[in-house]
Amino acid sequence: VPEENRTAPDSPGALPVDRIEAFSDGVFGVALTLLVLDLHVPHGLGSEHAIWDALRGILLSFFDCIINFTFVLTIWINHHYFFHELARGSRVLLWLNGLLLLSVTFLPFPTSMLAEYPNFMAPEAVLSATMLVGCLTWIAMRIYASNRVGLLHRNVSPARHRSVMTRSVVGAGLYAVALVLSFVSANAAMGVQFVTLTMFIAEPEWLCHSAGRGGV
Amino acid sequence: VPEENRTAPDSPGALPVDRIEAFSDGVFGVALTLLVLDLHVPHGLGSEHAIWDALRGILLSFFDCIINFTFVLTIWINHHYFFHELARGSRVLLWLNGLLLLSVTFLPFPTSMLAEYPNFMAPEAVLSATMLVGCLTWIAMRIYASNRVGLLHRNVSPARHRSVMTRSVVGAGLYAVALVLSFVSANAAMGVQFVTLTMFIAEPEWLCHSAGRGGV
Amino acid sequence: VPEENRTAPDSPGALPVDRIEAFSDGVFGVALTLLVLDLHVPHGLGSEHAIWDALRGILLSFFDCIINFTFVLTIWINHHYFFHELARGSRVLLWLNGLLLLSVTFLPFPTSMLAEYPNFMAPEAVLSATMLVGCLTWIAMRIYASNRVGLLHRNVSPARHRSVMTRSVVGAGLYAVALVLSFVSANAAMGVQFVTLTMFIAEPEWLCHSAGRGGV
Amino acid sequence: VPEENRTAPDSPGALPVDRIEAFSDGVFGVALTLLVLDLHVPHGLGSEHAIWDALRGILLSFFDCIINFTFVLTIWINHHYFFHELARGSRVLLWLNGLLLLSVTFLPFPTSMLAEYPNFMAPEAVLSATMLVGCLTWIAMRIYASNRVGLLHRNVSPARHRSVMTRSVVGAGLYAVALVLSFVSANAAMGVQFVTLTMFIAEPEWLCHSAGRGGV
Repeated sequence: VPEENRTAPDSPGALPVDRIEAFSDGVFGVALTLLVLDLHVPHGLGSEHAIWDALRGILLSFFDCIINFTFVLTIWINHHYFFHELARGSRVLLWLNGLLLLSVTFLPFPTSMLAEYPNFMAPEAVLSATMLVGCLTWIAMRIYASNRVGLLHRNVSPARHRSVMTRSVVGAGLYAVALVLSFVSANAAMGVQFVTLTMFIAEPEWLCHSAGRGGV
Repeated sequence: VPEENRTAPDSPGALPVDRIEAFSDGVFGVALTLLVLDLHVPHGLGSEHAIWDALRGILLSFFDCIINFTFVLTIWINHHYFFHELARGSRVLLWLNGLLLLSVTFLPFPTSMLAEYPNFMAPEAVLSATMLVGCLTWIAMRIYASNRVGLLHRNVSPARHRSVMTRSVVGAGLYAVALVLSFVSANAAMGVQFVTLTMFIAEPEWLCHSAGRGGV
Repeated sequence: VPEENRTAPDSPGALPVDRIEAFSDGVFGVALTLLVLDLHVPHGLGSEHAIWDALRGILLSFFDCIINFTFVLTIWINHHYFFHELARGSRVLLWLNGLLLLSVTFLPFPTSMLAEYPNFMAPEAVLSATMLVGCLTWIAMRIYASNRVGLLHRNVSPARHRSVMTRSVVGAGLYAVALVLSFVSANAAMGVQFVTLTMFIAEPEWLCHSAGRGGV
Repeated sequence: VPEENRTAPDSPGALPVDRIEAFSDGVFGVALTLLVLDLHVPHGLGSEHAIWDALRGILLSFFDCIINFTFVLTIWINHHYFFHELARGSRVLLWLNGLLLLSVTFLPFPTSMLAEYPNFMAPEAVLSATMLVGCLTWIAMRIYASNRVGLLHRNVSPARHRSVMTRSVVGAGLYAVALVLSFVSANAAMGVQFVTLTMFIAEPEWLCHSAGRGGV
């Protein structure tokens, strides 16, 4: 970008969105690849059979990478759509975005706990709590952005905004349910999490009429 | 980029390509450098001779870094060319790109297995399967992009598209052959992989007339 | 960005700011997520109770991640505002920025020391010294940028510049006090650090009249 | 960047430079911060005295981080200036850039060897060889870019090109001398490396008249 084209900081509180995106993308990239660091080939195996056995042993860690990848990518895609609707940033938005990124970088921890202790309740509780914090931050960002004049692009329709909001609130509610359930039954909590994640990926028509996208 | 220049999200499904590129580049960067993290200097060596011996011992890991680097860089270069042809992105494209990135972040695992167990068949099978998944995702992205109106730039010629497609299909076929071969002979599978990678790097005239570039 | 739009390097010393930002963001992203790498789930636990106990044990590391995150994010936000005011870069600025990034990447080390030895003076001293180096680099960058013609955007008002400068000098002074205090009382030093960080986050009116932002 | 502004891929071999820069910056960022990962606080220390002792013990690793940081930052700054002079990229340039990035990601390995075995010759030899490969890649990129019509911006003067070239060749020669010396005396090799790095940072007038910048 040529120097002449850079916006002069006319109002010190108004920030270009692209650097917030670039910074967030760096953090998302690390969160995506963090669990792959834990895939390790065992040393000193002597036969094909032993290697295949070892591979079978780390299959769970591998599935865990995919689950973590799916979670982080879903959040990133919604992040992508949300910031695409923003005309400019602000200091409060930077802190809310920071809180969201914190929950994203924390995600690999509960998902790797889940791979280690799949039938226990504690990992489910931590994962649900992390996603709940993410969803609530998301709702706060949406409310803040729509109430501050000049942050959202003018052509983002209120209908679209409402539909995205609905989804985020439903998502937060479902993760709250999963959090409570995780103290009763790990499998039930996992089921609710699966449904919620699928909802955010699939975007069913009845929930997101008017092409609403967003929410964690 | 000045705020006024940012495209307003006229159609919510149409996304600017640059952020997808930036996000992907972060993931590629980690995948490129992941294996270098495993290069460790042994502690407590007492003589020049002992250090050189230790260096000779990690020579294989070093070659492995270079092999992994070559694989990831080849995919990145093709990613670069493919997204350069895109006018805009979409939700489906983000998920296909995510699947491609997942196979890229997974690559260091089979290549480091290969360095540990060079004469065994299991690492060859996992590496071939990973590259096959990458190639198939690539083909799916190409088919999807060329069938959705508005995703590809108008001046990407059909001849070019066809030639790139040919290469991707040939690549997928060769990795499928390597996958089958890896259960018969590790060396034969490695040979096929070497030929396929070389083909993607060298781009021979008889395969890629009309300057076709792309494919994994 | 189209090729035609790229600024030709008319004066070799004048550099576009965006690449400096992108590069810095990569380093900030790693510094943000570095401590999360240390959150490890203990292996081989047999009961819900044992897992919750283990989680309680790593609670301190988790708080440490949040503290480190807050420090790095505060610096990043100020970095964001400062570079937003720059019209172009220079070689000296690249080195000053490099020194700032070095102190940022070093930050996770004293904060993780702090989590390990919360009641000792050494971690406080190292943390205060790191932040002091950061603040002094920040002041040097501001002085340099305001004295070199063409680096700052023309519409950055002197009042704004002065107010940001005041805050940076006050911050450096407070961290110097914390450094001295850390050899007397760890708790007193921690208190001063807390006040300083809060000041940079909250930006009280009496300190930053005229919307001044910046400083570490 | 708005979709309409993105260059359509008129000639498939001509690539925008910014994505090459963004990708390289990701790799540089990891190379910069890699050694900080090795700074670990010892566990279970019981007194202030023991902590200060432990800190003194990792002082060498800390200096090593700074040395590595200086090397990588110097290369990054030159990378910055070189790509700023480029109007567009090409496939060959991507591979040459990849080779340069490989030598950059490899750099933390010899510098951490140097911290572990400061008086031995092997680390000096590996470090000199890495920097020599980097310098030669750099020279190849310069020669290639100046011989391919349309890669360099038209207003890069031949005088400037020549002066940068001189510096790169002198740098390569000095690292070759350091490589040979490292088999005779570790200290002599380190001295030559120090002089070469200083030359690239300081850019003395007698070497770089006409504001020449670049080289490794």
